[in-house]
Amino acid sequence: MHTLSQLTEIVKNFFAEEQFTGSPSLLYEPIAYTLADGGKRIRPVLLLAATEMFGGNIDTARYAAIGIETFHNFTLLHDDLMDRSPVRRGKPTVYRKWNENIAILSGDAMNILAWRYFLRIKHPNLHSILSTFEQTSMEICEGQQYDMDFESRNDVTIDEYMEMIRLKTAVLLGGALKIGALYANAPDDDIKHLYDFGIGIGLAFQLRDDLLDAYGDTATFGKQTGTDIRDNKKTYLFLRAIEKASPEQRKQLLHLFSTTPENADNKINEVLNIYAALDIRHEVEKQIEQLHKKAMESLNNIKRPDSDKQTLIEMAQKLLNRNI
Amino acid sequence: MHTLSQLTEIVKNFFAEEQFTGSPSLLYEPIAYTLADGGKRIRPVLLLAATEMFGGNIDTARYAAIGIETFHNFTLLHDDLMDRSPVRRGKPTVYRKWNENIAILSGDAMNILAWRYFLRIKHPNLHSILSTFEQTSMEICEGQQYDMDFESRNDVTIDEYMEMIRLKTAVLLGGALKIGALYANAPDDDIKHLYDFGIGIGLAFQLRDDLLDAYGDTATFGKQTGTDIRDNKKTYLFLRAIEKASPEQRKQLLHLFSTTPENADNKINEVLNIYAALDIRHEVEKQIEQLHKKAMESLNNIKRPDSDKQTLIEMAQKLLNRNI
Repeated sequence: MHTLSQLTEIVKNFFAEEQFTGSPSLLYEPIAYTLADGGKRIRPVLLLAATEMFGGNIDTARYAAIGIETFHNFTLLHDDLMDRSPVRRGKPTVYRKWNENIAILSGDAMNILAWRYFLRIKHPNLHSILSTFEQTSMEICEGQQYDMDFESRNDVTIDEYMEMIRLKTAVLLGGALKIGALYANAPDDDIKHLYDFGIGIGLAFQLRDDLLDAYGDTATFGKQTGTDIRDNKKTYLFLRAIEKASPEQRKQLLHLFSTTPENADNKINEVLNIYAALDIRHEVEKQIEQLHKKAMESLNNIKRPDSDKQTLIEMAQKLLNRNI
Repeated sequence: MHTLSQLTEIVKNFFAEEQFTGSPSLLYEPIAYTLADGGKRIRPVLLLAATEMFGGNIDTARYAAIGIETFHNFTLLHDDLMDRSPVRRGKPTVYRKWNENIAILSGDAMNILAWRYFLRIKHPNLHSILSTFEQTSMEICEGQQYDMDFESRNDVTIDEYMEMIRLKTAVLLGGALKIGALYANAPDDDIKHLYDFGIGIGLAFQLRDDLLDAYGDTATFGKQTGTDIRDNKKTYLFLRAIEKASPEQRKQLLHLFSTTPENADNKINEVLNIYAALDIRHEVEKQIEQLHKKAMESLNNIKRPDSDKQTLIEMAQKLLNRNI
């Protein structure tokens, strides 16, 4: 069994050993730029941890680990373009560093590159692994579209929001874990529990992301803060605030979330003041803890000794505290 | 053996029998819009014709046929966005009918949907089929990037251009034929010849497309004419004109291809006048005939009776005359 930091190191080495070069350079350079040094490698680490939890050999899961991270980075690349996010991991996003067309096309190529890695897998469960990857990929597109739909809607419910982040964020953590478990020929019911664990920590992870977008420090978080408010995103914070708001506060919030000022600083501050008055930060933190607790129950249901679950427990803890 | 029009009908039925609906509707409606009624279905017809040529049963190749056409339409959807083409098959393109973000995301989903269809294939050669599809997909991205690179370059050679259209257009015809042949367990050397045939007719097809962009009739062709000239695309017509031009004509051409006037009508007419003076239309027609002849030689090398090759011969003829 490897620790979380050992697995992270192994995934980093997987990527360091890959070449993302090719011709034409304007197709491959953005791919290398996106994959080279960036990110926390959460999904491939989860995949390897799942393989190892069920007694599998992580070396055999190399290409699935690279493939799932490549796919994840493709979604970030296209999402950043669609969301007009200028910065990712402290660096200009691809559409800003190059241009929109290069972001579209190099993203398309990264999506295909992910399949290239998955097709390098040699495993009796290959078809189940590929189907899990395909279904997860499609669900993520659905989640992203719901996310965009919600920008122009004023009647989004918290249930709809949770379903959106399940699709957009949580299924990829669940899918990574499931693929890792398929590698190790885990029993079906354990795979189900592990997937549910992934969904739970994924939802908690996204709510933490919502919190950090409003309250994070740009330097450590590596992204601008307040962009969700600027872009009128109905995050959990907003939706819970609407539920708790007085008629006057609700009117003010709905008005603020219908504007798109050139400079959003005032708008962001006004929204944060309402959130503070409604104790939203604390509300969301409570919700994150509940999701975490439920995820740990799913993990407990898996018929493996606790010692085999240590890495995933550690990962869930890190995602909850979001110091990863 | 089915005729070309019978195969086209079969492919149409394949698509008529599929549902492209789902939620969220703004993700799936553009997919249904793109796939529902459009296009000549050349690639799936080639795939089925190849299967049948080697004695395979086309019903078993249904999902590969749908998958390859779905992928092709994904590339058109994203290309239309990148090229800012307003019309496709006489209808507004997706980014025009909806918006850019919806074009990006529904295209991504179509790419994944193509994989969904390919994963429905039950065949001992599945891995070869998937690898052929993956490699072809990546080459098409490379071709599209070269195409975009060429817009801002003034030193593109005819060899570079032919390599670009090989990647952007021809490999998908070759790939469709190869997948069809893999279905029918064709021998390796016959697959190679068939692939070369596909490349040849693909190159001829693209040169015909270049011609039609300049000389086609908007109503029958279903696209605006002169867009390649407007967008400063270094097509075969332009590159051959540059080779044959007098110093004065070359200077004029290079100047015209460095401008991007709001209204491109005058620019298009001036370029067409130079092409006419240099007999470019006839030059390109000669080149198309040579490519067609070479493709037919590749087809001749396949060790099957001529009667089995009739549908592909007919297809090559149609693509050459481009009344399909």
